[in-house]
Parts: sequence; C-alpha cells; structure tokens
Amino acid sequence: MSSSKKLSRKYNASVVAQKLVSKAIFDHSMIASGDRILIAVSGGKDSTVLAMMLSLLRPALKVDYHLAGLHISTDFCSCCKKPELINHLASWGIPFEDIYVPVIARLKAGRKMNCYWCSTQRRAELISYALNHNFNKIALGHHLDDSIETYFMNITAAGKLCGMPALLQYEKYPLVLIRPLSYLEERQVVACADEHGLLKSACTCPYGKNSQRIMMRKKIAELCGGSGAVKRRIIQAFNEEALCRTKLN
Amino acid sequence: MSSSKKLSRKYNASVVAQKLVSKAIFDHSMIASGDRILIAVSGGKDSTVLAMMLSLLRPALKVDYHLAGLHISTDFCSCCKKPELINHLASWGIPFEDIYVPVIARLKAGRKMNCYWCSTQRRAELISYALNHNFNKIALGHHLDDSIETYFMNITAAGKLCGMPALLQYEKYPLVLIRPLSYLEERQVVACADEHGLLKSACTCPYGKNSQRIMMRKKIAELCGGSGAVKRRIIQAFNEEALCRTKLN
Repeated sequence: MSSSKKLSRKYNASVVAQKLVSKAIFDHSMIASGDRILIAVSGGKDSTVLAMMLSLLRPALKVDYHLAGLHISTDFCSCCKKPELINHLASWGIPFEDIYVPVIARLKAGRKMNCYWCSTQRRAELISYALNHNFNKIALGHHLDDSIETYFMNITAAGKLCGMPALLQYEKYPLVLIRPLSYLEERQVVACADEHGLLKSACTCPYGKNSQRIMMRKKIAELCGGSGAVKRRIIQAFNEEALCRTKLN
Repeated sequence: MSSSKKLSRKYNASVVAQKLVSKAIFDHSMIASGDRILIAVSGGKDSTVLAMMLSLLRPALKVDYHLAGLHISTDFCSCCKKPELINHLASWGIPFEDIYVPVIARLKAGRKMNCYWCSTQRRAELISYALNHNFNKIALGHHLDDSIETYFMNITAAGKLCGMPALLQYEKYPLVLIRPLSYLEERQVVACADEHGLLKSACTCPYGKNSQRIMMRKKIAELCGGSGAVKRRIIQAFNEEALCRTKLN
C-alpha cells in the first residue's frame, strides 16, 4: 500500500466524523459565538471523541467558544484511566475538572442500583456545576445509535416519543443541552477513536450491558437495513417533533 | 363444541373491534353530538367494517350523530360489488351515494397511473362533497397497520414524522378527518368482517400491492414482536406528536 493511501485511510473516519458533527451543529444551531460549553467526559470513547471533535472543529466553524471537560466519578466505577483522559484533553486545549458523586451511597434503603438512578444523579450534578460555573451549554456524547434506541424503547414501552433530541433548551435553567454526535453511528465513533489511538484508554460502564437495549439495537438494524442514512432520517423526523414539543411546552 | 362456545366465538372479533374503536373515538374526542359524518366507503373490508362499527356503536356512545356513506367510482376499478355494499349500509341505516371520478382521464400527458395521484384525486372529491353537503367530519377506514406503515415509510424515506393521525383538523376547511379504526390491526378487521359475512362482498384495489409497503410491514412485525399492544403504543406516540404539529402550524 502506498504511503498516500495509508494516510487517507488513516484519517478517513475522522473526516467523516467531522462532516457529520459539523452538519449536526449547523442543522440544530448548536453553537454560537461566546458559548461556554461544558463537555461531560466519562472517559469512554464517545465523550472523548466528542471533546476531540469540538476542539478540532473550532477553526472550521469560525465561531469563538470556550470548552471545558467535567468528569463525574462515582463510588462504583473506577475503571476510567483518568491520567490518559486528562492528557488527551490537555492536548486539545480543554481544561479538566473532576467531581465525585456517591451514587450508591445516595440510594434509599432497599433500592437497587440501576441506570436510571445513576444517570439522574449525574445529570443533576452536571447541571448544578454548569450553572455555578457560568456555562450556558452542556455537550453530551450520545451518538445516533444511542438516540434511536432510546427513542424506540420509549415509543414501544411507554407510547411516548421522547428520547435524546439533538438540542434541548431546559425550561427551568438557562442551559441548552447539545448532542453533537447525533448523526454519527457508533461504528463511526469507534473508527474515529481507533484512528486517533483513543480506544486503548477508553473505559465502559460495568453496568452498561442492557439486554433490552441490545435487542432493540438488532431490531433497529433490521428496520434500517443496516443503512446509516435511514437511521439519520429517523432521527431527523424524531428530532423535529421533539423540537415541536419543546416549543409547545 | 357447545352452542354457547360457538356463539361467543362467533362474536369475539366484533366485541374486540367495538372496544378498540370506542377507545380510539374516546381518546381522540372523534365524535360529538350533532356531528354529520361522511364515511368514505370503497367497498373494501376496512371501510365496510368502519361503517358497521359507527352504526353499531351509536347506542353505546350515547351521542347523536348522522352517518352517510360516499363511494367514489373511478375509471379503472370496477371490481366493487356495489349492490352488496348498498344492502349492507341500508341494513345499518346508512344512506349511500356514489360519485364518479375519471382518475385516469385526469392524468396529464405522459404521466403513469399511481397510488398518490389516485388518492389525492379521490380525497379532493371527498372534501368537496363533504363541504357541499354540510358534513363536518370525514371518517376513513385506515387501520393500525396502514397507519404505522405509512408513518414508518415517511420517516425512513423522507425523515418526516407524517402519516395517518387518528384525528386531523383541516386548516383550510371546516372539516375534521377521523380514523376510528386506528387501534385495530388488519387481522382484527379481517376477523370482524369475516364474522359478519362481509369478506365475500369486499373488493381490493387492483393496484394495491405495493412491494415497499409489504417489506415495511414485515420489518414492523419484527420490531413489535407481533404484539398489537406495542403497535398501539407506537401509534399513540406518533399521534401525540402529529397533534402537536397540527396545533403548531
């Protein structure tokens, strides 16, 4: 293989990711000049790629914004390779902060640990930190597959079209939630992380293997015939309505 | 089998259909006292069951409304057994009217016949007839499978959450479109039509076998694991948003 081929192959996933992240940012007017954006960095591949993308795209977006990464440690997850995460963020010019939330200790007596409890505890801390440190936006690393799965799980289980919109203005707080990876399939996030050598330092939640979510992922793959374009059209349709609802409420 | 078992079996599908149609009417406030409802009767099983249901349910709904059936003949579909249709409607106390639309003759030069052209031509005539004859509601026989398929075809092909809401207020006309069979699966409509001896006189459109729709039906069956309850939750989620959108526009 020639060196030019090697080079183009090496950066292929990153180029695709930058295009799709730019499109999501543009379609949903996610970032404006002067924004102070707090990135929720878990140490996993998704939020690490998100932080890299938001840093890499700054010149192309031609918008002046401030980035910072917040890691929320818990009392059960210690797999995260924090020194590597801090190094990555520093190399992209992103300051890092770490706070601790005793997710298990906060459980009421007799209650078992679950994803919903953990995520609401962490989200509350994230919002509180953002408000106290003058951030106006929070960026989350959910990708296209996360979003579609969540929408379909809520639709089929609860009859509600709610999930992970690409952009959400909180009603109670002067804060906007953005999901710049909304158009990226998980395989595209993995390829991009791999290209940049980020996979070896990424961690995953030990409770993260939800069998219902895995089953739903298979069904969605069949519905979409494995097409990323079809997935993006689905999320476009759901996002439009989610925006509709946000405006109404 | 005892005669009581035979009897309960005989009317089983009809009882299920009446429950689900009542629920759809109630959930979406489809019918009010004094309504003049024009039923689009094609001669097919769906709209024939719809006409029967709206007539049968009148005492249970405790609302006084007027029903009439309108059949729109075209220049390519002559399979409909109109005398049987007229007899059925008469037995349910529903007056019948027939108008003719030259769907093929209206095609512009060089254009081929297609479902979209036919349905828009027929819908325009239906609206015009309803307005000229003082109807305030139009009832269509689309069932749960029709609705979900249409939503998913629009979502996956066009990225738009539009389809067949259970209730739609026209913006341009003083007319409301209702789909009282929205919660009934096709197999439930067929079972109900069969119980009442309606299948042998029902016709189907000769152009009606859309391969994309058949493929989508299979994918939806896999997504829902064959569960009617899951299908109803999907349509509930989509209908809520469609109503949202209608209020916004």
